[in-house]
Amino acid sequence: MQQENIEHIRHSLAHLLAAAVLKHFPDTNPTLGPAIENGFYYDFEFQNPLKESDLEKIENTMRELLPTWNTFACEEVSYEKAKKVFAGNKYKLELIEEIEAKGEAITFYTSGEFTDLCRGGHVEDMKNIPSDCFKLDSLAGAYWRGSEKNKMLTRIYGLAFSTKKELGEYVTMQAEAEKRDHRKIGPALKLFTISQLVGSGLPLFQPKGTILRKELENYLWDLHKDKGYDRVWTPHLAKEDLYKVSGHAGHYLDDMFSVHGGTSKEDFYVKPMNCPHHMQIFADNQFSYRDMPVRYFEPATVYRDEKTGQLSGLTRVRALTQDDGHLFCRVSQIENEIATIVGIIKDFYTTMGMMEGYWVRLSVRGDDKENYLGEDSVWETAESALKNVCDSEKLNYRVGKGEAAFYGPKLDFMFKDAIGREWQLATVQCDFNLPKRFELSFINEKGEKEQPVVIHRAISGSLERFIGVAIEHFGGAFPTWLSPVQVAIIPVSEKHLDYAHTVKHLLSGFSIRTESFNGNDSLGKRIREAKMNKIPYILVIGDKEIADNSVTVEKRGSEEKGISLPINDFVTKITNEIKNRSL
Amino acid sequence: MQQENIEHIRHSLAHLLAAAVLKHFPDTNPTLGPAIENGFYYDFEFQNPLKESDLEKIENTMRELLPTWNTFACEEVSYEKAKKVFAGNKYKLELIEEIEAKGEAITFYTSGEFTDLCRGGHVEDMKNIPSDCFKLDSLAGAYWRGSEKNKMLTRIYGLAFSTKKELGEYVTMQAEAEKRDHRKIGPALKLFTISQLVGSGLPLFQPKGTILRKELENYLWDLHKDKGYDRVWTPHLAKEDLYKVSGHAGHYLDDMFSVHGGTSKEDFYVKPMNCPHHMQIFADNQFSYRDMPVRYFEPATVYRDEKTGQLSGLTRVRALTQDDGHLFCRVSQIENEIATIVGIIKDFYTTMGMMEGYWVRLSVRGDDKENYLGEDSVWETAESALKNVCDSEKLNYRVGKGEAAFYGPKLDFMFKDAIGREWQLATVQCDFNLPKRFELSFINEKGEKEQPVVIHRAISGSLERFIGVAIEHFGGAFPTWLSPVQVAIIPVSEKHLDYAHTVKHLLSGFSIRTESFNGNDSLGKRIREAKMNKIPYILVIGDKEIADNSVTVEKRGSEEKGISLPINDFVTKITNEIKNRSL
Repeated sequence: MQQENIEHIRHSLAHLLAAAVLKHFPDTNPTLGPAIENGFYYDFEFQNPLKESDLEKIENTMRELLPTWNTFACEEVSYEKAKKVFAGNKYKLELIEEIEAKGEAITFYTSGEFTDLCRGGHVEDMKNIPSDCFKLDSLAGAYWRGSEKNKMLTRIYGLAFSTKKELGEYVTMQAEAEKRDHRKIGPALKLFTISQLVGSGLPLFQPKGTILRKELENYLWDLHKDKGYDRVWTPHLAKEDLYKVSGHAGHYLDDMFSVHGGTSKEDFYVKPMNCPHHMQIFADNQFSYRDMPVRYFEPATVYRDEKTGQLSGLTRVRALTQDDGHLFCRVSQIENEIATIVGIIKDFYTTMGMMEGYWVRLSVRGDDKENYLGEDSVWETAESALKNVCDSEKLNYRVGKGEAAFYGPKLDFMFKDAIGREWQLATVQCDFNLPKRFELSFINEKGEKEQPVVIHRAISGSLERFIGVAIEHFGGAFPTWLSPVQVAIIPVSEKHLDYAHTVKHLLSGFSIRTESFNGNDSLGKRIREAKMNKIPYILVIGDKEIADNSVTVEKRGSEEKGISLPINDFVTKITNEIKNRSL
Repeated sequence: MQQENIEHIRHSLAHLLAAAVLKHFPDTNPTLGPAIENGFYYDFEFQNPLKESDLEKIENTMRELLPTWNTFACEEVSYEKAKKVFAGNKYKLELIEEIEAKGEAITFYTSGEFTDLCRGGHVEDMKNIPSDCFKLDSLAGAYWRGSEKNKMLTRIYGLAFSTKKELGEYVTMQAEAEKRDHRKIGPALKLFTISQLVGSGLPLFQPKGTILRKELENYLWDLHKDKGYDRVWTPHLAKEDLYKVSGHAGHYLDDMFSVHGGTSKEDFYVKPMNCPHHMQIFADNQFSYRDMPVRYFEPATVYRDEKTGQLSGLTRVRALTQDDGHLFCRVSQIENEIATIVGIIKDFYTTMGMMEGYWVRLSVRGDDKENYLGEDSVWETAESALKNVCDSEKLNYRVGKGEAAFYGPKLDFMFKDAIGREWQLATVQCDFNLPKRFELSFINEKGEKEQPVVIHRAISGSLERFIGVAIEHFGGAFPTWLSPVQVAIIPVSEKHLDYAHTVKHLLSGFSIRTESFNGNDSLGKRIREAKMNKIPYILVIGDKEIADNSVTVEKRGSEEKGISLPINDFVTKITNEIKNRSL
């Protein structure tokens, strides 16, 4: 069988879907059916609501029709004919009229007995599509052309890959992803809350989720503090003036929240990023070349607007706490600084167990150099600094020519989670624009003002999004150092409560986070509850433990029975595990 | 001499000031001259600008006139006569017309040769005012009746007290306060920056100021973490719905910043307080009586609008990071919880050296019990719980009858700084309203829903304001644990750089914050610079120190010469001082 282009497979299957739908529901109006990531969809206007259970028979019909189709025949037709063919379908008519208004050609594509208005992009032969490489996935409502003003149509989603194996892997991954969905695990483990009164995209962190935030924040600061970084703090509001100077007021307003004072009637914005504030902290000092580089670190919450419908759990939010940092350095210092940052990124993602399958995009200028801001020599130095670091740090990188921002080249890091999904997380970005706009300078060896380069960097990206990713990556079973509760303490019965309390007190003295499972439920039920909470260690306390001054330790995920350990040995073991941030 | 009421003294002196001004500048229009805190002022329309240097001769004239004045004679006059007397003074005419419109009586008060339109409030006899208990203080511009739409007048401020001694004390305190002004010390010590682009009332914290914030925040959390508090995290925005339920949308809108999304077009508010968010965190759990009390802690930044003209440094800001906490408890638990909080407050302010001269206001209901929300028995239990804690903790307290909020009784703590100024800082507040509005509940022993009481508490008040107060209280010379830089390391010459670096490295290993003063300046100049920065310890490193493996330690504020210490002894000494948060 000939290997077909996957986009063509997916789009061709959308035709097949429409044909199958019309077999069952002939008075349906098909509208549009493109290929998408992992498959395809087709939007229909049904006369009666379609049921989820209808999908099976439609899918069966697709498989019946498939062997009867072969190539797609293309026919260019007149506007009149096209309108006649689709006379009863106002959606297709709207499309035809638009094509006519632009004076473009109308093409019909036919395979089997089904003809559709279409621009093309199909397989060479439908026989090349394995009948087991696709399946219908789900139903959804979708406004005609995505506008809330239009009618709500019915969208049928299908999955399609080149082979049955790939489809199977994707379906397995999706099932695993569903089990790991942070929007379910997060509330179940009492990590965060989405309150309808506060609003979606504005998550509130419960005590256990706040421990996650704090541990991540502390770890990120630990990775920076002995590398010359200073913490700073900036407020969440600023006058428009700041964003006029930074340029955000010109091109970023859609993403920004505007603010109006109740008494002062003055206007502000909620900060959508921390850079302009950090520029002002730098600007209030008169640094000399001996002070450079100056490095600021601030885990600060910024706010960016998105449509409510696009918000989701922690990964699509309006409140993002970036582990933000800005460096101010000389052109000659870029390489060293980038190398340090790349080292921090490697450390962080190694600790998270996410270095396998990562890759880096090195975005540089295109040939249209006049469209980029800053001197040629500065660009060349910066780009080769980034490339040198990629080489010396042996990063798995690809060069994205023409993908640099107009104000500087950058590195974007893509990491895979435990079930193989890719997330763009860390980023390092040179900026020749902001120091110019804010007229930043330091005094060089000649006693002259020299303009620094700014480097933006974020390691986790944002705490909210990273926690969302981490919940799914770890499936809620966080490494001990990151676990909100590290040890469950479960007395067998009431007479063991005192010793259980002694153990809890002892562990707390070593800053080990414990939770007691006392209560009246059976021992088995309490152990199950601790396991449901994915607590790394369960200590069961009974007569033997009291007699031995020991604890019986059951490790999360281990098949073995609990192991009896002198209590001090357990403390040493877990303390080391926490200190080393072991996986 | 008869003791006169201080308000009367101050107001009478305002008359005397006006009389003295007219002696020198007869074509001046006097307008209004009230008594104020610490003295008085009078606003004039001068024909030519008054100079600061004119104040002395006006003050001298006041002292010359004083013995010629005795009592104030009051005369009620007709509107016509009043208008005739003040025919040339449009300000007084405006006042007279307003009085006439209200149909009230016009009174003239005369002492010496000076008559003024006035409502009274004077001393019995001007002879009772000591001629050395007042002085003219300063000049300022002031809009007629405080409105920017009106003409700018000239305001002369005077200080006045009952005795020369009190005046002297106040002047000394003011001079000391000026030296300690956090708006000067803060930027000089590179603690914070007020950026005109970001806006006043929105301070940015430089690295050194951020250390102060972090140390305070860590200390505050240290005081809570073993007392059953959990940290939570909430975003800075919320939908209006939240504030409709909380009631803030009804009566707090003037202080709130409204927010409008650029893309979503949805409306939000910046949170003016954390309570409504914390209610939502509680509400997302189903607690039982065994879980109570539930205690949340969050040092979170809230935003409250004020007129730009009223903002000042860190003590009057729009961005306030409250060391906020909310407890949810049963009525029977109030007393215990309040006692714990009072213990935390005492610990915190003892560490800050501010317990001398403190007092507490216990605000309870007035007799109009129908104006307070909540059951009588709950109020009685809560009020007596607060009172019992005041007694058992031996607090210096005064009962403010009728000063409770409508939703619950409270304690407000007033502390004095090093130069005797009083600041309202800590607060503990019972709330019977929010749990009702948010329909909060836990399951009690009977399996029924029971409504908890909420206790609001803040220890430092807000980090920004407390840091402002602390800068002035300590005059920038913070205790070692709080000092942004704890040790200055100063090599005598270049050949001592290596050992200086070794010492720095050693101290950093113990998390001691150091700063090197190397450079080309003379040793004396570098020592002076370290002292200007109010660094607690200065280590001078020369030949002798290298030979002995020692450091020569000069303690801030000590008159003694530096003391030589083995380096390890110094580490032990300073580490203990930091750990104990010694003053």
